[in-house]
Amino acid sequence: MKESKLFLKTSKEKPKEADNISAEFLIRAGYIDKLAAGVYTFLPLGLRVLRKIENIIRKELDKIGGEEILMPVLHPKVLWEESGRWEKIDPPLFKLKDRHNREYGLGSTHEEVISDLVRKRVDSYKGLPFVLYQIQNKFRNEMRSTGGLLRTREFLMKDAYSFHADKKDLESYYEEMTKTYHQIFNKMGLNVIQVEASSGTIGGKVSHEFMVLSETGEDNIVVCECGFGSNEEVTIGDKNCPKCQGIIKKDKAIEVGHTFQLGDKYSKVMKVVYRDKEGKEKFVQMGCYGIGLGRAMATVVEVHHDDKGIIWPESVSPYLIHLIHLSGDKKKADEIYEKLSQKYDVLYDDRDISAGEKLAEADLIGIAKRVVVSEKTIKENKVELKLRSEKEAKLISLDKI
Amino acid sequence: MKESKLFLKTSKEKPKEADNISAEFLIRAGYIDKLAAGVYTFLPLGLRVLRKIENIIRKELDKIGGEEILMPVLHPKVLWEESGRWEKIDPPLFKLKDRHNREYGLGSTHEEVISDLVRKRVDSYKGLPFVLYQIQNKFRNEMRSTGGLLRTREFLMKDAYSFHADKKDLESYYEEMTKTYHQIFNKMGLNVIQVEASSGTIGGKVSHEFMVLSETGEDNIVVCECGFGSNEEVTIGDKNCPKCQGIIKKDKAIEVGHTFQLGDKYSKVMKVVYRDKEGKEKFVQMGCYGIGLGRAMATVVEVHHDDKGIIWPESVSPYLIHLIHLSGDKKKADEIYEKLSQKYDVLYDDRDISAGEKLAEADLIGIAKRVVVSEKTIKENKVELKLRSEKEAKLISLDKI
Repeated sequence: MKESKLFLKTSKEKPKEADNISAEFLIRAGYIDKLAAGVYTFLPLGLRVLRKIENIIRKELDKIGGEEILMPVLHPKVLWEESGRWEKIDPPLFKLKDRHNREYGLGSTHEEVISDLVRKRVDSYKGLPFVLYQIQNKFRNEMRSTGGLLRTREFLMKDAYSFHADKKDLESYYEEMTKTYHQIFNKMGLNVIQVEASSGTIGGKVSHEFMVLSETGEDNIVVCECGFGSNEEVTIGDKNCPKCQGIIKKDKAIEVGHTFQLGDKYSKVMKVVYRDKEGKEKFVQMGCYGIGLGRAMATVVEVHHDDKGIIWPESVSPYLIHLIHLSGDKKKADEIYEKLSQKYDVLYDDRDISAGEKLAEADLIGIAKRVVVSEKTIKENKVELKLRSEKEAKLISLDKI
Repeated sequence: MKESKLFLKTSKEKPKEADNISAEFLIRAGYIDKLAAGVYTFLPLGLRVLRKIENIIRKELDKIGGEEILMPVLHPKVLWEESGRWEKIDPPLFKLKDRHNREYGLGSTHEEVISDLVRKRVDSYKGLPFVLYQIQNKFRNEMRSTGGLLRTREFLMKDAYSFHADKKDLESYYEEMTKTYHQIFNKMGLNVIQVEASSGTIGGKVSHEFMVLSETGEDNIVVCECGFGSNEEVTIGDKNCPKCQGIIKKDKAIEVGHTFQLGDKYSKVMKVVYRDKEGKEKFVQMGCYGIGLGRAMATVVEVHHDDKGIIWPESVSPYLIHLIHLSGDKKKADEIYEKLSQKYDVLYDDRDISAGEKLAEADLIGIAKRVVVSEKTIKENKVELKLRSEKEAKLISLDKI
């Protein structure tokens, strides 16, 4: 992509709404644009990062048997009355009426909709277990949102739901899913701590959050050297580790994922049943597993940046290479662009602006690898390669890239 | 994908809500599931078709300079008041309030949001022209919806918006986009007729619809041998072609795409301006271009089916190959599956049900190519290949597939 064609406008000023570093950089670098409080547009660069995160998640979920579907945003009130959550869920649903005066909520989570889908389609133990997931817009009527993507009112979420004949099968799949969660976050460049969590208005007895340590985090977690970890909500008041009585450490963290063993919470009230080998009717055991994509993206920025801008890990960098023509014959840079872009995702800064502006903007945008073409490098038949995460650049010959 | 693992339940019965053939087959064959009137879940097979349609559209739009973004579903009332459409748009918006009593509409189209985005980011003629598009949920508070995906209240839409310095540039890009539209629909297996259309509450003077002839269509078009075509809304009452005075023919059709030369309709009221070479402030000229993805999918079914089920064109078939083990050594079929699935998208019917059921279901689902493994074919070291669109199968040797 030639930067002269890219719909991009960066800014040197910190935006008013940016109360955290990821908001500041994502807005300034032209990844997102604010439409309303907690409601953002993903611009071309931002959408590319989002798609890379999506694809990391898809690939890992497909490996453990996930099947992708797409459920609606409009949820009929009647379904949420069945589960008893129409009034109870926190934060509350956005609610609206259609022209026939029928009421709907905008989906903030999809347990009701998927329970309805599954009860219509599963009848025997032979159809179990299975796992369905979607990447879909979610809406939460939050009282307040942060600047940027950490707490929004409209956001893309991956939500997976697993269905099992018994608790044991749910538990063993839950283990597998939590392992997959570690892999997903690792691949995005996030070190996560898995902690015991409250299941809130989603429900179930066993629940874990996947936390990334960060001063920006709105959650407080307690961790112990013995491996125990929990959200402070769960171990409130404790000074010693409930597992080994050791001294616990408190930290601020961002929740990037949440998993729940729902058990029969929904299947009981919504009658999601199957017949076992003996023909006996039983409740399906459910698990559910969420990752907010925008929040994951913002969290990557919270932990991967310096004072000049974002430092994207390769796996989620909007482009792999930022090719910059600084000086000298532009035709040479054009040639390198043609060559490189046959093999890699390349953003090519072909604009007629100053070298200083180009380099400062490249640091702000934070693409993983920077390749600079200048009078000097052309003379030597080389280019200058610099990783955004490193300070030193090195000259490499053209045939080596 | 092994069919024994696929979340799929087909049905032999015509569903109550199916008032058209695509609704009947898409529901019976397990592509979609109805949640509420005009609100559907895409099941695994259905989502695969949707993604193929998405990718055809993306590829063609990227060729003519389209840049993908993702705009929100929640639109602040204040923006729609600027354009004057908050009360006027037809069908009306779904409206709701947040906890702070601020009003929002669910986006049914995104002219207001994109005009706001562009006015914040474009100031000079140097930044023009450009084209942004998204594939995003849309919501229309329709009085009535059809069964299936032809007229829904929540649906995925590709909407593109182009921005130009003057009318001439808009007109020439509009030409390019309409050519691209023909290519997009051709690639999906749809023959479209481009007709003059009313621009309704979207606006602008020049507007075209892309129509597929079908008895199920809710639109009436008039076409003439001279090449003239229009929606009946536009040429109402005419008996002779307004272009050549020839006799016109009336037909029922489904609208699968709609393009508009908006001109300065939105840029005037929302002040989307740029400075030209002389530094003079001018209004940006806009075009907008929509394709409903679910409706396109249903239209493919309306024109490609027989009495047994769907006949997907290869380009949008959920899988390219439906491998079916009918009889004989299952290990042989497993081997063929392993081999084929390294190169192609394969759905493998490995289930332990009768041959008749398998073949009937395969016809209903309608995957483009069917490969059958049976006792007979194994003996000859061959498989039976049959295109869903053809009657005759042929035996081919294993190394040839």
